[in-house]
Amino acid sequence: MAVIVQKYGGSSLETIEKIKNIAERIIKRKSEGNDMVIVVSAMGQTTDHLIKMAHDISPDPDKRELDVLMSTGEQVSMSLLSIALNHFGADAVSFTGQQIGIKTNGSHTKSKIADINEEKIREELKKGKIVIVAGFQGINNLNEITTLGRGGSDTTAVALAAKLRAQCEIYTDVDGIYTIDPRLYPRARKLDFISFDEMLEMASSGASVMHSRSIELAEKYKVPVLVALNTGDIPGTIIKEMDNTMENTAITGLAINNDEAIITLNGVPHDIKIIAEIFQSIANKDINIDMISQTFPVNKLVSISFTLPKADLHQASSILDSFKEKIFTFSYETCDNITKLSVVGLGMNTQSGVAAKVFNLLAENDIPVSIVTTSEIKISYIISPEDQKKAIEAIAKEFDL
Amino acid sequence: MAVIVQKYGGSSLETIEKIKNIAERIIKRKSEGNDMVIVVSAMGQTTDHLIKMAHDISPDPDKRELDVLMSTGEQVSMSLLSIALNHFGADAVSFTGQQIGIKTNGSHTKSKIADINEEKIREELKKGKIVIVAGFQGINNLNEITTLGRGGSDTTAVALAAKLRAQCEIYTDVDGIYTIDPRLYPRARKLDFISFDEMLEMASSGASVMHSRSIELAEKYKVPVLVALNTGDIPGTIIKEMDNTMENTAITGLAINNDEAIITLNGVPHDIKIIAEIFQSIANKDINIDMISQTFPVNKLVSISFTLPKADLHQASSILDSFKEKIFTFSYETCDNITKLSVVGLGMNTQSGVAAKVFNLLAENDIPVSIVTTSEIKISYIISPEDQKKAIEAIAKEFDL
Repeated sequence: MAVIVQKYGGSSLETIEKIKNIAERIIKRKSEGNDMVIVVSAMGQTTDHLIKMAHDISPDPDKRELDVLMSTGEQVSMSLLSIALNHFGADAVSFTGQQIGIKTNGSHTKSKIADINEEKIREELKKGKIVIVAGFQGINNLNEITTLGRGGSDTTAVALAAKLRAQCEIYTDVDGIYTIDPRLYPRARKLDFISFDEMLEMASSGASVMHSRSIELAEKYKVPVLVALNTGDIPGTIIKEMDNTMENTAITGLAINNDEAIITLNGVPHDIKIIAEIFQSIANKDINIDMISQTFPVNKLVSISFTLPKADLHQASSILDSFKEKIFTFSYETCDNITKLSVVGLGMNTQSGVAAKVFNLLAENDIPVSIVTTSEIKISYIISPEDQKKAIEAIAKEFDL
Repeated sequence: MAVIVQKYGGSSLETIEKIKNIAERIIKRKSEGNDMVIVVSAMGQTTDHLIKMAHDISPDPDKRELDVLMSTGEQVSMSLLSIALNHFGADAVSFTGQQIGIKTNGSHTKSKIADINEEKIREELKKGKIVIVAGFQGINNLNEITTLGRGGSDTTAVALAAKLRAQCEIYTDVDGIYTIDPRLYPRARKLDFISFDEMLEMASSGASVMHSRSIELAEKYKVPVLVALNTGDIPGTIIKEMDNTMENTAITGLAINNDEAIITLNGVPHDIKIIAEIFQSIANKDINIDMISQTFPVNKLVSISFTLPKADLHQASSILDSFKEKIFTFSYETCDNITKLSVVGLGMNTQSGVAAKVFNLLAENDIPVSIVTTSEIKISYIISPEDQKKAIEAIAKEFDL
């Protein structure tokens, strides 16, 4: 019997009616001869609501307790789904991360799955049961409840599929991976397939359908992942290893990220030690900086621009203030009104000039670009948010997205 | 250091504000040199809400899963309280029934505490921590999550106090045990003390402040229990062993139960085997019948009246219908419009004539009584609900309640 791991997100489980519908779909798939393992998120906005309660008590709630709190969300949805499955005549059993032995390491609220004891799941499957597992949670080596951070349920599903050598199906409120987020560009095409590498670059560039960590894991264990609408009646997108059935297009997709800000450092001495010290101070606060560009030195001084999450702008500014005293030429500017536009495609590996082509396209359309960075299969451009729509349309038209 | 076990009910924890207030009170008690163990119920109406969701899916939800579902309620309140305590500078840690090793036996949704592994609690207390324990829940010998039924958090608190040889304080939305429920008789007196036996009779007669099981446990392990208002600024009532500091009054309290119904069987052959068969059929369905009275036989036929929970009336009726075919003289009547009035007092042991005195009092006030039963320290009367107020006032006045 094939084992299928399905994951249902919060929007798929937000009402009793939706839970019942999903139960019926699961029973149908089981009746077709499959062993079913179901990973669930918390219902609807439950996790946000729990976090809000904690923050209403304390601006910096104890993280061990926050994990205890958040983990109840999946426990509610898993038991309700199990009640629905049993009600419809199936034999189902639900398990928390603790009960099923999802071992994690790392710190509270952002743990990583270290191992899964899949024996218990196999045992229950052998008895003919549908096994429901709480996503997003596990226990660490102190037996404390831990959570995996945003998108953690996807990671649970992929990790289970890897362990059980199963198919992995992620059901969500979008019907697949698009060349461009359809909310930004309604004429975007849905992709039948996308490679792990492209999906990773798309996810890290702002495409929010799946979290990067779950895709990394899928790539590592070569688990093909279907992303599809939770009603199950529309074909979705399969994320898998690159093979020659895939189009080798220059650009597979375009991602927009409006959650970044830009900082420009002026009057920085052209001295690698000083520059390294500045970046190290920022890194020490767990702030991820992303695109970096540096000007040619003038009078042994350079300007450096880089991007970072908007949420970290305030903290980064306080760090930079401390350098004003040390370096008398130094000043900085911040801007949180920027758009990062990234184009992703395996074809960039083999087709030269994609960056230049996009650059020309932007120039032709009078769209100024402040920073550009390139990787093997991705090029990112910082533009003004006002130009976002125009840029998407020009690129989508040129590359048939 | 004295160990204090405090239990906070749902109404004490229903808002973030209330949780913060309780946290401050707990810290104050700890600062006075006490080791604090806190048992929490689910916030406000959470448990009812969870049960409603389960019943919206299935009229008879799988009981294992129902326990998984319900146990999240206390997990939320315990982590929020711990976040509040940590926020205010205390060192607190919360545990589910599973994490702290509250072992249960019996069936899902109505398990009983078999044992508590108090070592972990003592360890944490030694580290100077405030320990928060989820009430109402445990795990059985299959490591399944179980719950203890209504009032289960009180039982958790008493069991912990027994194990830890601690004081037990139950904080709730009433400020103690009254001679009569103040909602029924506003002039009722609050008792400073009440004996375990009297409290048990009060609880089983309809006084809803504490559940009988927790009082039985407190009596068994001789754990004095303070019942007080959750603001903590009014002295409550202490439930403890009878001693000579207690008044040996004829009647300590009066309890009203409006959740019972009465069934009268007519034309029953005066044959103990037949009567036993009828009662056995009812007992087989787990229906608890309470007060029984039987008439003198006339033509070898008797009438028998008994009371039972209103909720079981329908099921009991179907059982009795089956006897109509077997016994051609047999018929029955039901009435769910009755009030059970019980008076409780240790003094009944030594003072004779209390039953007669109350009976006369009811007669003088034109209150007909349909059944009377007596135990060593309790007398119960079935009266009409319309007479309830009049009866309470007459008895309260006569016995100074």
